[in-house]
Amino acid sequence: MTRIGILADYLTEKHKEQILTAAEAEAAEAAAASVSGASASGAFACEVVFLKDQDDFKAQADTFEVLYGYFSPELLKTATHLKYLAGAASGVDKLVAPGVLPPGARLTHSNQSYGITISEHILMMLLMLYRREPEYMALASAHDWHALGSIRSIYGSRFYIVGTGNIGTNTAQRLKALGAAHVTGVKRTPGAADAAFDRVITTGELAETLQNDAAGPDALILCVPETADTKGLITAEIMDLLPSTCVIINVGRGTVLDQEALMNRLNDGRLAGAALDVVVPEPLPAGHPLWETKNLLITPHISGNMSLSHTVDLNIDLFCRNLRHYFNNEPLEHEVDLKKGY
Amino acid sequence: MTRIGILADYLTEKHKEQILTAAEAEAAEAAAASVSGASASGAFACEVVFLKDQDDFKAQADTFEVLYGYFSPELLKTATHLKYLAGAASGVDKLVAPGVLPPGARLTHSNQSYGITISEHILMMLLMLYRREPEYMALASAHDWHALGSIRSIYGSRFYIVGTGNIGTNTAQRLKALGAAHVTGVKRTPGAADAAFDRVITTGELAETLQNDAAGPDALILCVPETADTKGLITAEIMDLLPSTCVIINVGRGTVLDQEALMNRLNDGRLAGAALDVVVPEPLPAGHPLWETKNLLITPHISGNMSLSHTVDLNIDLFCRNLRHYFNNEPLEHEVDLKKGY
Repeated sequence: MTRIGILADYLTEKHKEQILTAAEAEAAEAAAASVSGASASGAFACEVVFLKDQDDFKAQADTFEVLYGYFSPELLKTATHLKYLAGAASGVDKLVAPGVLPPGARLTHSNQSYGITISEHILMMLLMLYRREPEYMALASAHDWHALGSIRSIYGSRFYIVGTGNIGTNTAQRLKALGAAHVTGVKRTPGAADAAFDRVITTGELAETLQNDAAGPDALILCVPETADTKGLITAEIMDLLPSTCVIINVGRGTVLDQEALMNRLNDGRLAGAALDVVVPEPLPAGHPLWETKNLLITPHISGNMSLSHTVDLNIDLFCRNLRHYFNNEPLEHEVDLKKGY
Repeated sequence: MTRIGILADYLTEKHKEQILTAAEAEAAEAAAASVSGASASGAFACEVVFLKDQDDFKAQADTFEVLYGYFSPELLKTATHLKYLAGAASGVDKLVAPGVLPPGARLTHSNQSYGITISEHILMMLLMLYRREPEYMALASAHDWHALGSIRSIYGSRFYIVGTGNIGTNTAQRLKALGAAHVTGVKRTPGAADAAFDRVITTGELAETLQNDAAGPDALILCVPETADTKGLITAEIMDLLPSTCVIINVGRGTVLDQEALMNRLNDGRLAGAALDVVVPEPLPAGHPLWETKNLLITPHISGNMSLSHTVDLNIDLFCRNLRHYFNNEPLEHEVDLKKGY
């Protein structure tokens, strides 16, 4: 009996039925195809448990072969029989550390579910910074009706997007559809990316490309996971290659940029603005200087908020496909290479 | 000698040269082609005056045959020799009233310059309302890091856009590019509209269409000028046909909707949110209840802010083309029918 544990408070009845149907069908098929024929009764070849909460999970953690949801390393300590963890989150940086998963366990990420909602977050933040909306909201709070000066547009602007995966690609596609003049994709290794990118460079070429870019970007958008390669990628030196009109949007991981350097440059106007959905540390404590940094919009790591129903749909569709692959001993979609960390 | 007065504080030297070149060339050409041949010297056939401010204009108002810029009816009182007013604004409702322009004077609007910037404003407001950004900004002010509940997306949503002109069309195109499921265009008279609209109905069909629309729109977007047909178009009864999850965006004129009815419905949750760039009255005085209405974002009529350089470029390009048409006695682009008011 394969026990499948689902720890997710955002599923509708429809999603639950979809998982049940998939699990039963795939397990039955796999059992029927199996030479050993361990179980002839497909309906009972596996059991899906929708867990109430983390305590409910802890009480039976060592009984699960498959898990789906958001799990912390702490929570996984007693999942000793785990063979496949379907991570619901986009990032997996906390799960790839040695010892978090039992030896031989497999891991998939759900990055591809988040492109749409996170790219809409990025568009919103760009427009708010370009159109001075935080200042207009402050005026409105003071019942003050007057126009401020210059605003800017996505139309005709130039962007650098670090990360050409699902989130970066969705963002590039939307920016081009809105009339962006030029989008540079920045990726770890040389190679092709979606046609929405006007050019693709490697992270190693970022500094030199910025140095030789006379106009410079109107925004630097960061959508990379935390890996050994991305940690500290956006240094103070890189920031100093950006024009003072540039804004920075970070929806990846807080560690990707030098947060102290960013604060200084925002406070003294060397950069025009920023929007951080990820910071160091999370949760950001009250009184942290980041909260009072000039022209900075902070959101509490919600750009990929699972409450967007389309995100959940994509996430559960992927999990159900991967259940089939798992039972059929096929390669999993979006499987993480635990050695590389992504 | 044709005197052309330019009242605009947002022109660059490049724009000024563009106007000078166009005026001189067109006047020369017209003079050369003219049977009377009033002036053989094209360079002096007309004079372009870049006015410092309104007082500068008032001192010589009756000398101008052509004017470009934002003019109030008050300001135009002494422009007794005016033959062509190139309005820089999108709306012309205040200029079409009887007696504002001298008899026989022609008027053009600059609506088509505003589609890009106003549609970006609309996207920003939709995303802010859908993603609860005003609430997240309030949390950030309180140094409070925690996630709120459900958010929504443009992707997969359904929109009604009242007004299928340049602004409505640019908005529909952007919404479809971002994955909107369905966009209904609402226009005065039956007829075609841009392919970005999934269907087009008339304003007369709006109530019945909403009544029969089971899902109902996720947003009602208003981008119509003020005319006899659009004044009071969005009544309390129309609002009551919208689902309580619907938001309203108005970038047209404040008089297009029943502002009192909107305030009531926002305050008691019958509508999910609104963003008004146009209100009654403008400027909105401090203490007006609109400022404190729930889930309402107010901006001071800046969605088409001329400080967006691309907007100015389009505007001046149009004016220069129309100068050519004017001197050649050709139909003007975007000429207003003073009887109809648009």
